[in-house]
Amino acid sequence: MSQSISTSAPAAKAAQGVPTSSKKAKETQQFTLKTPKGTKDWADKDMIIREAIFSKLTSLFKSHGGVTIDTPVFELREILAGKYGEDSKLIYNLEDQGGELTSLRYDLTVPFARYVAMNGIANIKRYHIAKVYRRDQPAMTKGRMREFYQCDFDVAGSYDSMVPDAEIMNILVSGLTGLGIRDFKIKLNHRKILDGIFQVCGVKEEDVRKISSAVDKLDKSPWEAVKKEMCEEKGQPEEVADKIGEYVKISGSLREVLQKLSSDPVLMANESAKLGVEEITTMTDYVEAFEVDKYISFDMSLARGLDYYTGVIYEAVTEQSAPPEDAAEKKEKAKKSKKDEEDASEYVGVGSIAAGGRYDGLVGMFLGTNSKGKKAPSIPCVGISFGVERLFSLIKQRAQLADKIRASSTQVYIMAFGGGEGWNGFLKERMTVASQLWKAGIECEYLYKAKANPRKQFEAAERSGCPIAVILGKEEYPQGQVRVKVLGTGNEKEDGELVDLSDLIKVVSTKLEELKYDGMDDVTRLLAGL
Amino acid sequence: MSQSISTSAPAAKAAQGVPTSSKKAKETQQFTLKTPKGTKDWADKDMIIREAIFSKLTSLFKSHGGVTIDTPVFELREILAGKYGEDSKLIYNLEDQGGELTSLRYDLTVPFARYVAMNGIANIKRYHIAKVYRRDQPAMTKGRMREFYQCDFDVAGSYDSMVPDAEIMNILVSGLTGLGIRDFKIKLNHRKILDGIFQVCGVKEEDVRKISSAVDKLDKSPWEAVKKEMCEEKGQPEEVADKIGEYVKISGSLREVLQKLSSDPVLMANESAKLGVEEITTMTDYVEAFEVDKYISFDMSLARGLDYYTGVIYEAVTEQSAPPEDAAEKKEKAKKSKKDEEDASEYVGVGSIAAGGRYDGLVGMFLGTNSKGKKAPSIPCVGISFGVERLFSLIKQRAQLADKIRASSTQVYIMAFGGGEGWNGFLKERMTVASQLWKAGIECEYLYKAKANPRKQFEAAERSGCPIAVILGKEEYPQGQVRVKVLGTGNEKEDGELVDLSDLIKVVSTKLEELKYDGMDDVTRLLAGL
Repeated sequence: MSQSISTSAPAAKAAQGVPTSSKKAKETQQFTLKTPKGTKDWADKDMIIREAIFSKLTSLFKSHGGVTIDTPVFELREILAGKYGEDSKLIYNLEDQGGELTSLRYDLTVPFARYVAMNGIANIKRYHIAKVYRRDQPAMTKGRMREFYQCDFDVAGSYDSMVPDAEIMNILVSGLTGLGIRDFKIKLNHRKILDGIFQVCGVKEEDVRKISSAVDKLDKSPWEAVKKEMCEEKGQPEEVADKIGEYVKISGSLREVLQKLSSDPVLMANESAKLGVEEITTMTDYVEAFEVDKYISFDMSLARGLDYYTGVIYEAVTEQSAPPEDAAEKKEKAKKSKKDEEDASEYVGVGSIAAGGRYDGLVGMFLGTNSKGKKAPSIPCVGISFGVERLFSLIKQRAQLADKIRASSTQVYIMAFGGGEGWNGFLKERMTVASQLWKAGIECEYLYKAKANPRKQFEAAERSGCPIAVILGKEEYPQGQVRVKVLGTGNEKEDGELVDLSDLIKVVSTKLEELKYDGMDDVTRLLAGL
Repeated sequence: MSQSISTSAPAAKAAQGVPTSSKKAKETQQFTLKTPKGTKDWADKDMIIREAIFSKLTSLFKSHGGVTIDTPVFELREILAGKYGEDSKLIYNLEDQGGELTSLRYDLTVPFARYVAMNGIANIKRYHIAKVYRRDQPAMTKGRMREFYQCDFDVAGSYDSMVPDAEIMNILVSGLTGLGIRDFKIKLNHRKILDGIFQVCGVKEEDVRKISSAVDKLDKSPWEAVKKEMCEEKGQPEEVADKIGEYVKISGSLREVLQKLSSDPVLMANESAKLGVEEITTMTDYVEAFEVDKYISFDMSLARGLDYYTGVIYEAVTEQSAPPEDAAEKKEKAKKSKKDEEDASEYVGVGSIAAGGRYDGLVGMFLGTNSKGKKAPSIPCVGISFGVERLFSLIKQRAQLADKIRASSTQVYIMAFGGGEGWNGFLKERMTVASQLWKAGIECEYLYKAKANPRKQFEAAERSGCPIAVILGKEEYPQGQVRVKVLGTGNEKEDGELVDLSDLIKVVSTKLEELKYDGMDDVTRLLAGL
């Protein structure tokens, strides 16, 4: 939908802070009318669906005692530093315009940890629905954007082991099933088990994070490629990589994998792995109480890229999460054809639709030392982040959705019928009636024309989707009467019910009640697949 | 609330995209834990009040047939260029990291015009609630921020003269009164009248915009200062400035000022001024039909800084909008004391709480030429923008508000009472009950402890503000029974009603109904001053 346009010379001047003195000067400078790469406008029915997703998740978060916060879209650059591992290169920086150095937030987790530390909060359950920014390769139709929404729920505070973690699993499952998504699984792993595996396989302490990053690529690349990265780029001996390869193949139900790991004496001799297995054992009890264990696949290949995780990690995936089978081929082809890689949708999957984990050290990174030089203890945290654009791209595929959704929610279209001598179109009269309806909380519209014929007004009413028309007749209105007509019944020829103006609000309210018209409710039901 | 902290060496390394290998290294680098200048975190009850403002305005916009859109937080830099006059220097730019040059949006109007042009939209009523960014001197307690929300409603399309403009006045009045703000007035003027005044006073065509900028400062500075700017900085002869001075003093009710202007033969001989007066005359008819004329003060000193307005302009102000009487003195003192000018709250007012106008040329600036080299006609637009932070700072002053508001909205606190031998705290049992309540849509919480004594649980329930407790007794629960207890009645010693587990949902729902508990409804009523 982009098009070339010419901008005016004063425009270019004003960009440098120089005021312009005439709007009419012309220049030949051309630029494309578009949004920045990896971003898009949201409008119309898409917007309604997305708002319904927000509303659904907000109710869910609130029902678990969540309170909401809002942090600035940019943070001091130091706040974000050292939190994202290799992905730090994807952070958007703001220009140094003489002031603080700032960057757009990369997720909602680090700003949350900063908020908890800054305000000395001991415990909180907070949710936050907001945009985050990553200078990644976009794949727009798959919902992989540079600007995208995250819906996060996090629990901060010292509690009994794995209690909030299990509740997060409950929220994850309710969130997805509540949006009508049922064919998902939750891959789950534990950073301490993973660290233990690397240790018993012979990875040096200082190499653990980078080997973890390599394992993180297993959802996109085959083992052979990951092994190559470990050995060639990351300097591991082949036998170390092969040993890791055996472990990361392990996956299955929680009880199955726990059984397997517990009976591995080498692994159980490792303190970190042992602690991780104990925690997952406790958690398994709780997710069984919540009856959400069946969604969980305990998967040793899940590593999660971010630096800050310290305990259980998880991500929810669907079949569409994986890249297409011929992804490598398509990617190669795209490269060769040298076409502008605007969009990687062809050769990537949707990715995970929700993800999170435990991060017990992050708040501590922001805490100072007290007067005795002793560092304040960190606040343990665990959370989940829903990727709304990715969920949206799955939900949008339910084709029947779009038909039933209206972008606007007006209920009454006000018309005036007349003609002949002295007919002024009753514009002020329509305004007066509209004003009364608005005051009574009834959504209404009318055509912004002084005089309009009935056909034009009916067409506009149909476009708006209003279920009811209020008609001001040339003779009837001066007698204090209007007609109320239910639209979309096929009986468009009928005149509608003649009503005293003083009864209008009552009659319209009753008719709306009868029609049970509630647009957003419809959408929410549709979302849930009901 | 800021504090100095030390960050770790790996953090600094990772900021350059280098992965870190150890989380424990220390360094001495110090930075302050804060949000960037002019921004703040929102949380707790403030957040509830702000969300209620959004919700109130959203309903209003929808009731006038508005549909919503969402545009990216940054736009291509060329899109913003040449739209904001002298204020262009306040735009935040993103760093050039090898890609497109982009800037944070300065308002929601220019992105809206870009959207309309890009999608070839002929008419739309859209609302948009989102953050905008201005590198201005912040005055935090007055709600003047660098990152702040705007709530915009705009009508694009060719309609009969002044019909949407009058509806915007209706929305402005309903929006403010609906938020319990009643002591406001709407200053209104017309760019074409103002241009006409400048012309008849002898200002040259190319000086009109900069003289308009000078007049725009009349709400903050006395006429003498503005006159000095016109003569000394902007090169106008003194007699020209004096003539302008006579005109910009004119203000009063719509009918009064229309009468005065219409009877000024010099001004009426000017085509631009005449057209403006005709439009305001038409509009006056309509705002009288809406019964909102009494809020409007037709004020020749209102100029509005932005370049893109072409017709009627307006802003809503309250007593707190003006700077304090001793503003100049305080500002001087602040400068002399050389303290870091973090906050200008002491010597500025709240400013306008809502503002807007007609901008018929803006969409056209983004439209291209067709194949015959003919420029596409622009789409006329008119709109209003509510400044939420400023509204918030007014609403927050109603002290009684805060007491009645809860930040969370959970309704049931689940507890377990027991003790003695074999008592395990019923954690899994509490989870099972919570799970049932959540599935029934009932918000609930429980303490994240395996075992907790009754006192701790009651304290937590009180902190959460839940109106109801569900209590699992050591003997009762295994018999399939729990107790349901209404909290906050003063009768904390009573045991509560013994209920079969199978009836729990029904009993809790009935009790909540009886209590008529709906947190958000309360807030909305309070906001409206009811």
